Amino acid sequence: MALKVAERGRIPSFIVMDVLRAANEKMAAGEHVLHLEVGQPGTPAPEAVRKAAHTALDSLRLGYTDSLGIPRLRKRIARHYMETYGTEVDPDRIAVTAGSSAGFLLSFLAAFEPGDRVALAAPGYPAYRNILKALGLEAVLLPAGPEERFQPTPELIEQAGKLDGLILASPSNPTGTMVDKDTLGRIVDCCRERGIRLVSDEIYHGIEFTRRAVSASELDAEAIIVNSFSKYYSMTGWRLGWLVLPPELVRPIECLAQNLFISPMALSQEAGVAAFDAGKELDGIVQVYAQNRAHLLEHLPAAGFPDLAPADGAFYIYAYSGHLGDDSQALCKRMLDEINVAATPGTDFDPERGHHYIRFSFAGATEEIVEACERLKGWTATS
Amino acid sequence: MALKVAERGRIPSFIVMDVLRAANEKMAAGEHVLHLEVGQPGTPAPEAVRKAAHTALDSLRLGYTDSLGIPRLRKRIARHYMETYGTEVDPDRIAVTAGSSAGFLLSFLAAFEPGDRVALAAPGYPAYRNILKALGLEAVLLPAGPEERFQPTPELIEQAGKLDGLILASPSNPTGTMVDKDTLGRIVDCCRERGIRLVSDEIYHGIEFTRRAVSASELDAEAIIVNSFSKYYSMTGWRLGWLVLPPELVRPIECLAQNLFISPMALSQEAGVAAFDAGKELDGIVQVYAQNRAHLLEHLPAAGFPDLAPADGAFYIYAYSGHLGDDSQALCKRMLDEINVAATPGTDFDPERGHHYIRFSFAGATEEIVEACERLKGWTATS
Repeated sequence: MALKVAERGRIPSFIVMDVLRAANEKMAAGEHVLHLEVGQPGTPAPEAVRKAAHTALDSLRLGYTDSLGIPRLRKRIARHYMETYGTEVDPDRIAVTAGSSAGFLLSFLAAFEPGDRVALAAPGYPAYRNILKALGLEAVLLPAGPEERFQPTPELIEQAGKLDGLILASPSNPTGTMVDKDTLGRIVDCCRERGIRLVSDEIYHGIEFTRRAVSASELDAEAIIVNSFSKYYSMTGWRLGWLVLPPELVRPIECLAQNLFISPMALSQEAGVAAFDAGKELDGIVQVYAQNRAHLLEHLPAAGFPDLAPADGAFYIYAYSGHLGDDSQALCKRMLDEINVAATPGTDFDPERGHHYIRFSFAGATEEIVEACERLKGWTATS
Repeated sequence: MALKVAERGRIPSFIVMDVLRAANEKMAAGEHVLHLEVGQPGTPAPEAVRKAAHTALDSLRLGYTDSLGIPRLRKRIARHYMETYGTEVDPDRIAVTAGSSAGFLLSFLAAFEPGDRVALAAPGYPAYRNILKALGLEAVLLPAGPEERFQPTPELIEQAGKLDGLILASPSNPTGTMVDKDTLGRIVDCCRERGIRLVSDEIYHGIEFTRRAVSASELDAEAIIVNSFSKYYSMTGWRLGWLVLPPELVRPIECLAQNLFISPMALSQEAGVAAFDAGKELDGIVQVYAQNRAHLLEHLPAAGFPDLAPADGAFYIYAYSGHLGDDSQALCKRMLDEINVAATPGTDFDPERGHHYIRFSFAGATEEIVEACERLKGWTATS
């Protein structure tokens, strides 16, 4: 009797990961691939973090920790809210998680019942809808175009029918657009009126180019804030993130975390505390992103991509590619095959309109960004 | 409008974690608590692993890895099956996970539909039933008593009605009992006839005292094998584990892992490869467990616990405590309050009959075990 594969095991692949694998295979074969596909810094963790990790390795047993994280890190994260946003946050409301991935999983389980409807902008981070699907929740896509700066608006929320949750990402992946304080206030009001739990993905905070990002913690005590050490803090592979929780969700999240994860990685937690003292090094990295961004904004139009989303933050440029064909996945495949430039098709982020967009990441080295523009210029002119 | 907390966020606390916190609070207050409650080695990761971690910290960027793990580690784990069990396993069937916790989560999502019935022995690891519940699956408890050596049997499986899955843990937590090869063969046959997917928890393999543990990979190509670096390899806080998957589940698990976890912790993976070369150090640790076990088996009867489950493997002794009262949770609380010995109430493992059992862990230092027996002798005699 053949055993089954569950329906919810059949969630779509995260296309960028498949692009990454194809690019890695080309690299292993000796080709010089330019990585504009992957959403991670090209830098290692800050020096202070690596130093703290060496010390912890030599001095600590590194066993299980409290499920919500080591107290020292929870306190340090709470302090970060006062320092960065001027918001008082009780350390008891902080849950340290195995990356924002675990944070989303825990939040969705604690806040939503099976069948609940959770809205998010399309385009958006594909794992949102795939995690929602795996947990039996309905992802309601809000078609946010250039007119909405690719972000949810009260109007889009109102048009979506009965909702239980809203995921907001500012700065957004894949577009980099941010929601300003007034708009966020209107979204929070709209959610409050309608009994919608706001889940605010703030993992790109700190990587901002035009103005500072606003945290939902400044405006909404009932929101779940999701953050991560992966992006600004340059610690992707360390799998460390955190949640700021409304008080009523702390204990449910603790019980879920005990059972589903036991505890976050001990060494990452011990070392992660030092990330908050690495501001100078990290701001230097953001300066590189700013250069990369400026180069792309200047040169992508001449390289065949004149229509770009306003990249307020994060390290992405979402480029219209409809004039180059109706299949961004094929376009990205051809780009990788022919000029060894890896980028991510928009279909990863928006099943409906993503075939007319591709995402360039500028988290890598400036030489790679410059070289990619050069290669693209010749290529789009002749293809 | 007050926002809700989801029903599935209300899964029970993992009691041992709460005991751990209470014990830690007493320690912080300066008391000398003996930790016989927590299921983790008292030792750090093996020296070779810590050394490899230092090297990786200095030489690698430590970004995201392939979602199923770095190829080098997947290959090394596959080789481990040939070396340990004489079983050929394709590295493509190995999925590296963030501890066995993530392995269970991924396995349950990929193999079972919401509402599916998954059986497991009671007593058993509490997170099994809590993860199942969080994912909308029905945990079917098989009442396995001393007559069944606290393990599932074909008879118990047949009596449980229609089942979709069976979780088997050998050696078991909390009892340490193992299933021998003949019995495992009968269980595998029974599952095969009934279309039941076997999930074999083998995280205590390597910690064996009476005979070697049998892996389901030796008998059943359709089983999901769950393993971990936490126990034998002494790496709890590193959150590293693995799955051996039947081929049809590899791609679903990969897609789920991409979306739910992105990838396992990079440093743990790089360092974890070295764990397989640390056999001498690790077997030395198992020798200490063997001493601790022998001491408990000899002295617990005189300390008021004459009725002990046969501890074939793992580092637990499951002791009958019904003659000391009908509430093992109260017993453990009193034991911690009065003589600073922390142990785990059986109710964590078996809601029905666990009020008559407590679990002693002997993963700690021998001095602590010896001292605990002394404190218990005086205490049970007078209480």
